[in-house]
Amino acid sequence: MLTTILDMAGVAVFAISGALAAARAGQTIVTFALFAAVTGIGGGTLRDLLIGAPVFWVGRSDYLGVCLIAAAAVWLVKVERWPLKTLLWFDAVGLGAYAVIGTSKALAYGVPPLPAIVMGVLTACFGGILRDVLAGVPSVILRPEIYVFAAVLGASSFALASSVGAPTPVATALGFIIGFGVRALAIARGISLPSYRQDDSDSAP
Amino acid sequence: MLTTILDMAGVAVFAISGALAAARAGQTIVTFALFAAVTGIGGGTLRDLLIGAPVFWVGRSDYLGVCLIAAAAVWLVKVERWPLKTLLWFDAVGLGAYAVIGTSKALAYGVPPLPAIVMGVLTACFGGILRDVLAGVPSVILRPEIYVFAAVLGASSFALASSVGAPTPVATALGFIIGFGVRALAIARGISLPSYRQDDSDSAP
Amino acid sequence: MLTTILDMAGVAVFAISGALAAARAGQTIVTFALFAAVTGIGGGTLRDLLIGAPVFWVGRSDYLGVCLIAAAAVWLVKVERWPLKTLLWFDAVGLGAYAVIGTSKALAYGVPPLPAIVMGVLTACFGGILRDVLAGVPSVILRPEIYVFAAVLGASSFALASSVGAPTPVATALGFIIGFGVRALAIARGISLPSYRQDDSDSAP
Repeated sequence: MLTTILDMAGVAVFAISGALAAARAGQTIVTFALFAAVTGIGGGTLRDLLIGAPVFWVGRSDYLGVCLIAAAAVWLVKVERWPLKTLLWFDAVGLGAYAVIGTSKALAYGVPPLPAIVMGVLTACFGGILRDVLAGVPSVILRPEIYVFAAVLGASSFALASSVGAPTPVATALGFIIGFGVRALAIARGISLPSYRQDDSDSAP
Repeated sequence: MLTTILDMAGVAVFAISGALAAARAGQTIVTFALFAAVTGIGGGTLRDLLIGAPVFWVGRSDYLGVCLIAAAAVWLVKVERWPLKTLLWFDAVGLGAYAVIGTSKALAYGVPPLPAIVMGVLTACFGGILRDVLAGVPSVILRPEIYVFAAVLGASSFALASSVGAPTPVATALGFIIGFGVRALAIARGISLPSYRQDDSDSAP
Repeated sequence: MLTTILDMAGVAVFAISGALAAARAGQTIVTFALFAAVTGIGGGTLRDLLIGAPVFWVGRSDYLGVCLIAAAAVWLVKVERWPLKTLLWFDAVGLGAYAVIGTSKALAYGVPPLPAIVMGVLTACFGGILRDVLAGVPSVILRPEIYVFAAVLGASSFALASSVGAPTPVATALGFIIGFGVRALAIARGISLPSYRQDDSDSAP
């Protein structure tokens, strides 16, 4: 029950971030729906394919419905120009929620902790990567800014708390707070990870 | 039987559009085959993975054979330069056929109408998107020109006609005519959907 | 047993090539791990999804562990700047190994020879394509230089040798030597396939 609510909320906030990217790119209502759906359900789709689960949104209409409503809502609210920050905050909430949901579903399917954490990270990051690729903007994962690492921390916290016997709501809240919190710090303060130092004199590969 | 013919025809026309993209990009015969295969079977592959069906071309050799023949045929016909229109018309026929085939197969697998229509749209559009990404040209889905929307209309018409009890050949013909027809109008007359209005003064996301 | 060793070696060399790409792009340790994992296990993941096998790295931790070790190793070895040639040679070994492994696994799953060879080619080339896309460098498959064709030759040699009854170690060695050898010649001597001749006066599609 808690999982279903979190799941639907994760789809909604990611779908809104996708529709906001479509708005910033001056797209049509059809592309709004496409961006919303790809961002909202892309990460969970990859997770389900990898763990061999039926893809969560295929047998029902509500997940797609949420994406369509998100697209229509952003389309109807005519803002002079949606600020990038709005998109980033919706994305951050989705990242925190999906890192936990992805890890949780993988563990429930009998996936060992290390690949289960990877599933959480993929679920959290893949929708946003697809959104950036579709919108033709450079993906955040290539910048030193903390993004994937926030999902790694959220997913790992949830897996660790679960493995030491914490009740599911506690482990879920912990994982979400850590994943979202670290990403929020990165957005608000511009925190980055150190990059590999090298000579930049010759050309890139 | 009708489905198999439509299916093979869909693979063939999309494979030709892929080989034409390789020709326009001055590629090698190996890349011709790669572009033809990715475009010809990419959309159906995604559909089958999502609905949990065995991927249609993996257990047999004929679908890949059709892609190889399409690649060889385009390679051998030395044209000064293939016009973009030729590619677009082959793509339009594939789009109309695949919107119906994708929706039909999803419904046959017990997928509800809304996600089944999405499967039709994915089947119709994903191969062409992969082709554009491989060829390094901007994807048509980011332009206001009607493309995804034609697939939505074709897939929806088929699903609606099927649900009210129309015989399969009638529903198939209707869906194909509407999907192909709307896309043909968009190519011939340059019909577009309205874009989200916004101020363009600051930088893209 | 031989397959497992080859498999793990293939993951390791591709993971190193991914980490080297991250180093050349001046990425963080988290991105090193991401590049290593995507390149190391990307091709085999696509193969397993297509043939309907459980994805090979999901139910265990060692494959991901190899990718993390490869990422850490490249991160710790501070080189002024990793030469592109180092990346290319690791990639070539992975290409030769994976062309054989991919074909072999597909045949073992009852896939006919033609699609099985395609599985070998996909397994060999897809990880490197994902690595190039992530790193934002033009993919080798769009250059006339021999790359995909080396995988085609390696996979075909293995399938042919297997079908005429050659013992598995012999077929494996033959496929690897041909796939790696042709790619090595292409790197060392710059061998290319002929491109489609056409007039370049008008704009690309």
